[in-house]
Amino acid sequence: MIDFVSICDYTGTFAFAISGMRLASAKQFDWFGAYVVGLITAVGGGTVRDMLLNTTPFWMEQPSYFIVSGLALLFVIVFRRHVIKLTNTFFIFDAIGLGLFVVVGLAKTLAFGFPMWVAIVMGTITGSFGGMIRDIIINEEPLVFRKDIYALACVFGGCVYCICLRAGLPTALLQFLTAFSVILVRVVAVKYHISVPVLKGEE
Amino acid sequence: MIDFVSICDYTGTFAFAISGMRLASAKQFDWFGAYVVGLITAVGGGTVRDMLLNTTPFWMEQPSYFIVSGLALLFVIVFRRHVIKLTNTFFIFDAIGLGLFVVVGLAKTLAFGFPMWVAIVMGTITGSFGGMIRDIIINEEPLVFRKDIYALACVFGGCVYCICLRAGLPTALLQFLTAFSVILVRVVAVKYHISVPVLKGEE
Amino acid sequence: MIDFVSICDYTGTFAFAISGMRLASAKQFDWFGAYVVGLITAVGGGTVRDMLLNTTPFWMEQPSYFIVSGLALLFVIVFRRHVIKLTNTFFIFDAIGLGLFVVVGLAKTLAFGFPMWVAIVMGTITGSFGGMIRDIIINEEPLVFRKDIYALACVFGGCVYCICLRAGLPTALLQFLTAFSVILVRVVAVKYHISVPVLKGEE
Repeated sequence: MIDFVSICDYTGTFAFAISGMRLASAKQFDWFGAYVVGLITAVGGGTVRDMLLNTTPFWMEQPSYFIVSGLALLFVIVFRRHVIKLTNTFFIFDAIGLGLFVVVGLAKTLAFGFPMWVAIVMGTITGSFGGMIRDIIINEEPLVFRKDIYALACVFGGCVYCICLRAGLPTALLQFLTAFSVILVRVVAVKYHISVPVLKGEE
Repeated sequence: MIDFVSICDYTGTFAFAISGMRLASAKQFDWFGAYVVGLITAVGGGTVRDMLLNTTPFWMEQPSYFIVSGLALLFVIVFRRHVIKLTNTFFIFDAIGLGLFVVVGLAKTLAFGFPMWVAIVMGTITGSFGGMIRDIIINEEPLVFRKDIYALACVFGGCVYCICLRAGLPTALLQFLTAFSVILVRVVAVKYHISVPVLKGEE
Repeated sequence: MIDFVSICDYTGTFAFAISGMRLASAKQFDWFGAYVVGLITAVGGGTVRDMLLNTTPFWMEQPSYFIVSGLALLFVIVFRRHVIKLTNTFFIFDAIGLGLFVVVGLAKTLAFGFPMWVAIVMGTITGSFGGMIRDIIINEEPLVFRKDIYALACVFGGCVYCICLRAGLPTALLQFLTAFSVILVRVVAVKYHISVPVLKGEE
């Protein structure tokens, strides 16, 4: 049975993979290269998290992430001309995925017995490192650290999780509130063009 | 005693290291930097595989990969003017190395108890991630995803391995056929300029 | 109680973080992005070392590296105009940090039971990979392999460690001599513009 969390997980994977493939296509990557970039965008953050936690990466346990990324590639190839019109839709999918990825990163790290601050770091890595690795592979400066609020939305979600946990909220509610707060920060930041100040250089 | 597999392994390491050093020299890296880029090109794929398999990287068990990379550096320094004439020779060495690296990645992953599809992914990572990391360090877009068939040859080899294994072929034969099929795909793709279609962008 | 080694460690972390933040600010990263780049510059080398050693990264055990990096960010924001005048001071801090990072990498690897040559490799990775990852993220060719003697100073320190260990020197003295030799090589290389020859290309 596919539950609600799995649906969010696959939605996020699909949206993250699409974001990787769109940028790869702008760089003349071939289909297979675009697939790899999309896949790494989707699973890269969680993979870095699992390697830091010294455990087997989550995607090695079931092939669904490879299949969802394959569907994303098919989607980009078939609906090429229409993908650009769907930018707003993808943005929402991407934000949902981000919210869920942060929750997964937080919960998994706490389950390994690490303190809350490590969990917040891992939630942020889960949400933002896929996009960072994507930008490194396609040879661009990472967008996640330069545009709108992205990685910081993950940190905010981690703080919400921490507060809710100490307030004794039930797991389902606290996970929902965390994901919701990440999505909310993303949507508000993009809609009102809120961003962190640029670090001014020396001259 | 140095067996046939070790000879192929060192040949591949030598060729992969040379490819890294040639690209590093075009970017004005110093000798030591070129050595590091060559070494990472040669052992990078297997290192990522071993980190994902959560085991100690293979090169930490014996210094031979560092020595072979050192010989490759010496070769590039001494025969600088002649290296370009040897491009075709290096291409064959590189293809042999690729074939062997894929086989090593497949066999090691199955020995760790993972299913066949994970082994195919790991064989592909073993063969192609060294070149990808090389291109990231020298600040270029990865060639492995944009030129001829490279990473896809590794996937093809993995499928051949899978079929031969289910057909019950003896280990030596199935490893030979896998390596051979990877090399064949590479040679045919380069000779006849066969490549995966470029993923077309949105405008 | 904060001992001498911890002071050197935090000094190095601070200087490494500053070097990451200065380069990030030249690329228009926002405050949070600059913080992440600074942090990765400081802990990146040790993190790669710990992942290769198949152990939990050192920074997951205590939040001090995150706090020191935060102070470095505050310093860069507040003293922006004066940072450039302090370049020489930072250079010394950076060299002290490098010396200490190499010693930590050597000692930790030997404590895990690896042979000396692996320890020298790990000492070099601990000292130089943070800067390499920094340059990859900000999309530049790695400085550590192109300018003055940097990574090679780490290798030299490793050899000094090896010789002192075989000579039976007490731990404190051998660690001091190793760190000192790394710092000395760095200072002499920069002062007298000594560098490794560039690997000449093919045309």
